[in-house]
Amino acid sequence: MLDQAILAWKAVLGADHVVTDSGSLVAAGSATFKTTQRIPAIIRPQTRQEVQEVLRIATRFRTPVYPISGGKNWGYGSRVPVTDGCVLLDLSRMKRIVNFSEDQGYVTLEPGVTQGQLFDFLQERKSGLWMDATGSSREASMIGNTLERGFGHTPSGDHFSNVCGFEVVFPNGEVIETGAARFENGCAGEVYRPGLGPSLDGLFAQSNFGVVTRMTFWLMPAPEAFQAFFFRCDREDALPAIIDALRPLRLNGTLRSAIHVGNDYKVISGIQQYPWKETNGETPLSLELIRKFRKDMKFGAWNGSGALCGTDAQVRDGRRLVRAALAGKVDKLQFVNKRILALGSRFAGASKYLTGWDLSKTIELAKPLFGLLQGVPTDKPLTSVYWRKRTPIPKDMDPDRDGCGLQWVAPVAPLVGTNADELAKLSSEILLRHGFEPMLSYTLLTERAMICIISIGYDRDLPGEDDKATACYKELEAALDARGYMPYRLGIQSMGKMRMEGAYGELLRAIKRTVDPASILSPGRYLSEVDTTSDKALGQPCR
Amino acid sequence: MLDQAILAWKAVLGADHVVTDSGSLVAAGSATFKTTQRIPAIIRPQTRQEVQEVLRIATRFRTPVYPISGGKNWGYGSRVPVTDGCVLLDLSRMKRIVNFSEDQGYVTLEPGVTQGQLFDFLQERKSGLWMDATGSSREASMIGNTLERGFGHTPSGDHFSNVCGFEVVFPNGEVIETGAARFENGCAGEVYRPGLGPSLDGLFAQSNFGVVTRMTFWLMPAPEAFQAFFFRCDREDALPAIIDALRPLRLNGTLRSAIHVGNDYKVISGIQQYPWKETNGETPLSLELIRKFRKDMKFGAWNGSGALCGTDAQVRDGRRLVRAALAGKVDKLQFVNKRILALGSRFAGASKYLTGWDLSKTIELAKPLFGLLQGVPTDKPLTSVYWRKRTPIPKDMDPDRDGCGLQWVAPVAPLVGTNADELAKLSSEILLRHGFEPMLSYTLLTERAMICIISIGYDRDLPGEDDKATACYKELEAALDARGYMPYRLGIQSMGKMRMEGAYGELLRAIKRTVDPASILSPGRYLSEVDTTSDKALGQPCR
Repeated sequence: MLDQAILAWKAVLGADHVVTDSGSLVAAGSATFKTTQRIPAIIRPQTRQEVQEVLRIATRFRTPVYPISGGKNWGYGSRVPVTDGCVLLDLSRMKRIVNFSEDQGYVTLEPGVTQGQLFDFLQERKSGLWMDATGSSREASMIGNTLERGFGHTPSGDHFSNVCGFEVVFPNGEVIETGAARFENGCAGEVYRPGLGPSLDGLFAQSNFGVVTRMTFWLMPAPEAFQAFFFRCDREDALPAIIDALRPLRLNGTLRSAIHVGNDYKVISGIQQYPWKETNGETPLSLELIRKFRKDMKFGAWNGSGALCGTDAQVRDGRRLVRAALAGKVDKLQFVNKRILALGSRFAGASKYLTGWDLSKTIELAKPLFGLLQGVPTDKPLTSVYWRKRTPIPKDMDPDRDGCGLQWVAPVAPLVGTNADELAKLSSEILLRHGFEPMLSYTLLTERAMICIISIGYDRDLPGEDDKATACYKELEAALDARGYMPYRLGIQSMGKMRMEGAYGELLRAIKRTVDPASILSPGRYLSEVDTTSDKALGQPCR
Repeated sequence: MLDQAILAWKAVLGADHVVTDSGSLVAAGSATFKTTQRIPAIIRPQTRQEVQEVLRIATRFRTPVYPISGGKNWGYGSRVPVTDGCVLLDLSRMKRIVNFSEDQGYVTLEPGVTQGQLFDFLQERKSGLWMDATGSSREASMIGNTLERGFGHTPSGDHFSNVCGFEVVFPNGEVIETGAARFENGCAGEVYRPGLGPSLDGLFAQSNFGVVTRMTFWLMPAPEAFQAFFFRCDREDALPAIIDALRPLRLNGTLRSAIHVGNDYKVISGIQQYPWKETNGETPLSLELIRKFRKDMKFGAWNGSGALCGTDAQVRDGRRLVRAALAGKVDKLQFVNKRILALGSRFAGASKYLTGWDLSKTIELAKPLFGLLQGVPTDKPLTSVYWRKRTPIPKDMDPDRDGCGLQWVAPVAPLVGTNADELAKLSSEILLRHGFEPMLSYTLLTERAMICIISIGYDRDLPGEDDKATACYKELEAALDARGYMPYRLGIQSMGKMRMEGAYGELLRAIKRTVDPASILSPGRYLSEVDTTSDKALGQPCR
């Protein structure tokens, strides 16, 4: 059946866009952790009509396909399909920006459009609009990240809440548009999300119901005034107070952008690779040592970044409120504008002189963050994936190729200090015991919820590390479940956690049957029949 | 079958809660326009378990049921089912407030909880949180309004965007919870909407898939500072400039609450009943006369209301920006705080003295709006439904009982002046030609979209008026469709506009079959098989 499908696909796409050489297939099958899935082919349509044709063929020949936009889903499985034997449906050739309005603040994209491409597009037009970028790389797909409910650092940081008007191709070859966009001559397709009647947009996030071939992103006008702020706290027990102090500012709209708070391990992994010399090659990096690094390099046990956007007066007032909220809770709070940052990077002393805080060491980290807080995509955060490598970080980073080990666990919790604290203690104990540094970051994503990203970083080229990391991952996952911290997003190794029991699962299955009668689209992605967690979800709820 | 169902329902609910006396049934079957649907019974469960039982019985005996929360859906069909012979499933006894967090800003409600009940609940607790209220009445259901995508006047005015964690009973008797709420011991059910995997919340707005028996509403902290503003413009051609001037303030977050702009007819209908004397009993109220009233009563051709919320500094700065944006575009812009309003209502001169604008006539209108802008529910706007009645407005208003004629057409459009202008001209011409006053209000609901509410108001007790109004309604609807202005919400008389063709309709039908195998829930509501519009939707798009 596969051979017939491949022939048919070649007829539609041309032989160049049906890739079967083993080199490419093996590369596509490797992620930042151990995978065994084989990929028999990669097909690369360029238009929505080609996607329809390709899916009809897949359905006819019962050949499972697995769409990827940019394939940069590092830490969650990269480009690797959930199940074995899926053909990769690579949408990266669909790079059209099909609609744009400066006045109304939106842009309509295809899945191949990357963060970098959109940013350059806006720059060329000297647009006064900001996009939001996730801290992954310039090559990340706008649509791909949004469909996984990814997030960034600006007031539009919650990506899925700032899009509408999806064009979706069902596996059966049919096409729909969602919301107001489905009315042929309707005028609100790019601006009014729900349309009329039940809204379907939510069905296409974290699912395998259809291939999204078009999406409208809402862009915000660049604010009159912008100020980033960075804070650090040297006390390890200070996190709950910080989170509880920031919640009211999130709730009342003072902080409209997503604040990020990272621990010491997170910061150092962003500045440099593992300190093999200082540790005499021992892992994990001990608490004693990380404390020493904190002192020497002037970062805190907890380190925050955020931004104030608005008019001059609003930003000035925001500074007052942030200062007041964090007073006595952090050891250093620094508001940073372009001038300070420029000086800071020119020579170590300057920023210290200006700010009383030696930014020189953390400047490398601060700079790309300063950009991200304004929606400027960057490759810099990716360097942290090379944390445990003994080889230097290459110019053309490719974590999958370079054997960078990364597994992410990403629980969501209420924006409450005690929850942040429990997540930190629980994960730190488990990771250190398994021999990994607990790299934690908290994103205050909405007014009421935060997402905690826990990185398990390692060197895949060291024998046994993959298995060690996976054992750690599994224990951490189970422990979080038991405490009621469900993930906001899943890696391909734990799709079973979605849970499909009861009427909820029945409804999802019915939708799947309707749009994908041959179930050829991303089998096992989120909609999994295997529930690995239902028996584990015991223990006390986290509230 | 019905008789057996009624017996079974009585066994579950008790005879008191299965209403079959003709008086109640006739009352329940009357709306603010002509309806012929008969209602054979009203059943009134009090708990989710009873709802499940009641629906199982309906399924077993193939008896269609039509859930209402408050039944105050005036202008769209009140409590009347879309199709004939539906049993009314009255949820107004489900009045529990099941969860509340002052710190995290949310409250979890049952469908019987009214705006007034929630407001009183917050007052009793001296809560520092604001709810949002729609300008209907204190008796409107929070959940009912939200499921129809209703809106209000505060920064949380877009109701469906500020809720999560639905508990839904399917017609087959099964129950699900949506988003993070579906994880038994999960801790983010009230704060994180999407949960994990595809999000289903959108399916239950404007549909007939299930009975929502519980919902969490996000409440905002009362701002440190609040200022309402009212503006008026005497030039009839000023609307486009006003809309285009406000859009940037909506987009950049200066105006976080939903601005409302109404025309002269809308304003006078809010102040008084139809001026039968001045018109010698003639209708409609002519342009000449409305202009005269504008002069005498000091309101404009266009009249706006909005609010600034934030810190003192933010509100002060907001005033500057609103002033600058509307300078030269409006004839009067008045910022109003409690003091001015109090004085204004005490005696005519004071407010004029203070503000240079005689609020005395419009004070009656301004006062409840002032409250709505802070989420205070009010019955006042309901008086306008008695506009064309020759009898005085009763203390206990009941538009359905009192023969108040009201049909609403509610198109959505991009937040663009030319769209606002076209909507006004198109609808004014049609309404006046049919003998009705074009009462228009525009709500700048989101940063990019506005909803235009066009009221056709009349006296149902005058023979022939119902048919005249319906003819007008149909022509207006078709004209708006042809120009690409789709409704944001439907009355029971035009559910066909939802459109069920193609893969979109197929998917909705599949969902319906799964959750409602006997299709007993609200037949024809939004998911209608009759498409009355597909042939009419011609003409040029509105952009």
